[in-house]
Amino acid sequence: MSELRRDPIIGRWVIISTERAKRLLENKKEFEKTSDQSCPFCMGNENMTPREILAYRETAKPKDSDGWWLRVIPNKFPALKVEGTLNRQGEGMYDKMNGLGAHEVIVESPHHTKQIPDLPDKHVEDIIWAYRDRIMDLKRDIRLEYAMIFKNHGHSAGATLAHPHSQLIATPIVPKRVREEVNGSKDYFEYKERCVFCDIIKQETQFGQRIVSENEDFVALCPFASRFPFETWILPKLHDSDFEDIQKHEAVNLAVVLKDVLGRINRVLDNPSYNYVIHTAPLKESRLPYYHWHIEIIPKLSNVAGFEWGSGFYINPTPPEEAAKFLREI
Amino acid sequence: MSELRRDPIIGRWVIISTERAKRLLENKKEFEKTSDQSCPFCMGNENMTPREILAYRETAKPKDSDGWWLRVIPNKFPALKVEGTLNRQGEGMYDKMNGLGAHEVIVESPHHTKQIPDLPDKHVEDIIWAYRDRIMDLKRDIRLEYAMIFKNHGHSAGATLAHPHSQLIATPIVPKRVREEVNGSKDYFEYKERCVFCDIIKQETQFGQRIVSENEDFVALCPFASRFPFETWILPKLHDSDFEDIQKHEAVNLAVVLKDVLGRINRVLDNPSYNYVIHTAPLKESRLPYYHWHIEIIPKLSNVAGFEWGSGFYINPTPPEEAAKFLREI
Repeated sequence: MSELRRDPIIGRWVIISTERAKRLLENKKEFEKTSDQSCPFCMGNENMTPREILAYRETAKPKDSDGWWLRVIPNKFPALKVEGTLNRQGEGMYDKMNGLGAHEVIVESPHHTKQIPDLPDKHVEDIIWAYRDRIMDLKRDIRLEYAMIFKNHGHSAGATLAHPHSQLIATPIVPKRVREEVNGSKDYFEYKERCVFCDIIKQETQFGQRIVSENEDFVALCPFASRFPFETWILPKLHDSDFEDIQKHEAVNLAVVLKDVLGRINRVLDNPSYNYVIHTAPLKESRLPYYHWHIEIIPKLSNVAGFEWGSGFYINPTPPEEAAKFLREI
Repeated sequence: MSELRRDPIIGRWVIISTERAKRLLENKKEFEKTSDQSCPFCMGNENMTPREILAYRETAKPKDSDGWWLRVIPNKFPALKVEGTLNRQGEGMYDKMNGLGAHEVIVESPHHTKQIPDLPDKHVEDIIWAYRDRIMDLKRDIRLEYAMIFKNHGHSAGATLAHPHSQLIATPIVPKRVREEVNGSKDYFEYKERCVFCDIIKQETQFGQRIVSENEDFVALCPFASRFPFETWILPKLHDSDFEDIQKHEAVNLAVVLKDVLGRINRVLDNPSYNYVIHTAPLKESRLPYYHWHIEIIPKLSNVAGFEWGSGFYINPTPPEEAAKFLREI
């Protein structure tokens, strides 16, 4: 069983997960696998994974069989598990609790090599619906405070399997970075009586220089204070704090903009590794007037060095105006 | 000129530095250089660097000549520069200022391949004195709020030159992560009327399981809520918030414990890349009863994946008790 431990100085919770150590050993060479025969996420290998949580498949087929086009399964080496009680306790001056939560894998398609930009719009939309379905389901578990959807693409972005997949981790605490964002937005709202993200969208679309792509419902931009070269955010134009509130027409347009932006990143940066994370409100804090869900995409171009780690202070050699120009004009 | 930009949501300052972009191009293959002839940090190549700020050398020799055993120079591709005015200004809703500050390189010795564990104790002590000398000097510049000393060792830890060196970046703002640490310690102090780091040292030395190494003045331990496998902190036993207050006997013992800990990390993890950062109080907030300077060492063993980036939430597969046992018993 893994354990959640709280740093006594800045209050950051860390997952200490011995299960994951096994993964490091077992999967060391998994990534290089190209044969679809041995890939647990490929069609026909359903018995190589834990039992599926959700799948979109032809109706006649049974669970854990083939015929699916999207499949959600528990992570084989979960950082957190749904079984057990939370059991908050002290250890002298320290605070800890059981590693309760969820850790799931969203296998985005049966194709071993097809990335999001290669899939039909409708299929990418289904990935978005799968993200939403899982959040809606986990929201019913009152022990959980946050559900984070993220994608590690490429080895240097932390992926251990090449087959395209996203992940979901649900935690019994609100992660520190999320709490900072929600609180920071709240401070701005209290001062200005406006959502900071709505203000960003307004200023950026007027200014234009940091815009990457835009459609009816979404805008993609390189943020003013980008931490990383080519960091790109996708924001819904209509204010909403909760990703899972997404409307049908928005899901359609999010699929379009996500494909477009990842395609641009691939062309400009020659298919880099990248991470994206959906930033959304905590599960028990819905419909906030001051928070605005969005997706942050970070291409992995250089190693983050000591200064960044120690300080939370980033040196970005590529101004976002230049990055956006490259991405916009390709 | 680089620019400091503030994220309007969480208030994090980022350096947008176009000078650094040049470095990425120029230094791409610098790291592989083994010939001491072409290394700008080797003895005899003093003309390949900007003019030195400080050097420890035989007294008869002039500045920027050979005969030194430690040398501090400006970074050739500085993220921040001392010239100019701060010039805080708005850009619509955003805040920015000139990239004013300092970015220096501490060339630890003339030896191209000798790492800290390979140097005599006295030489490592001189590295510590050089760190202090530079902080003391920069402290006189009232425009500066923070001086961070850090070391990137190895390519995957962000080093672009192999010759052993540390860096100093001084900033006109207190970095967010530092502010969080100082404020978090203050909250603890207000609640408990004790320094949280002093409490950690007391509990850890009594408990013993997370201790790596210890001498009269310092303790090295793997922290309870370690973010990374084999993360190790070195803390002075005597409370002090400011690294630059270090006493002679402490500098002697810090050299010993630093050599010892880095040597243990090298032996257990087979000479990994690593970063270390000196965490010390802001320049204008000296002698704080609640903050406690220390060094955080982070070996670079695996890629930090999307979950960590997005959430500020870390999954560590190696319990610190196990890491400390390995490091202690080697």
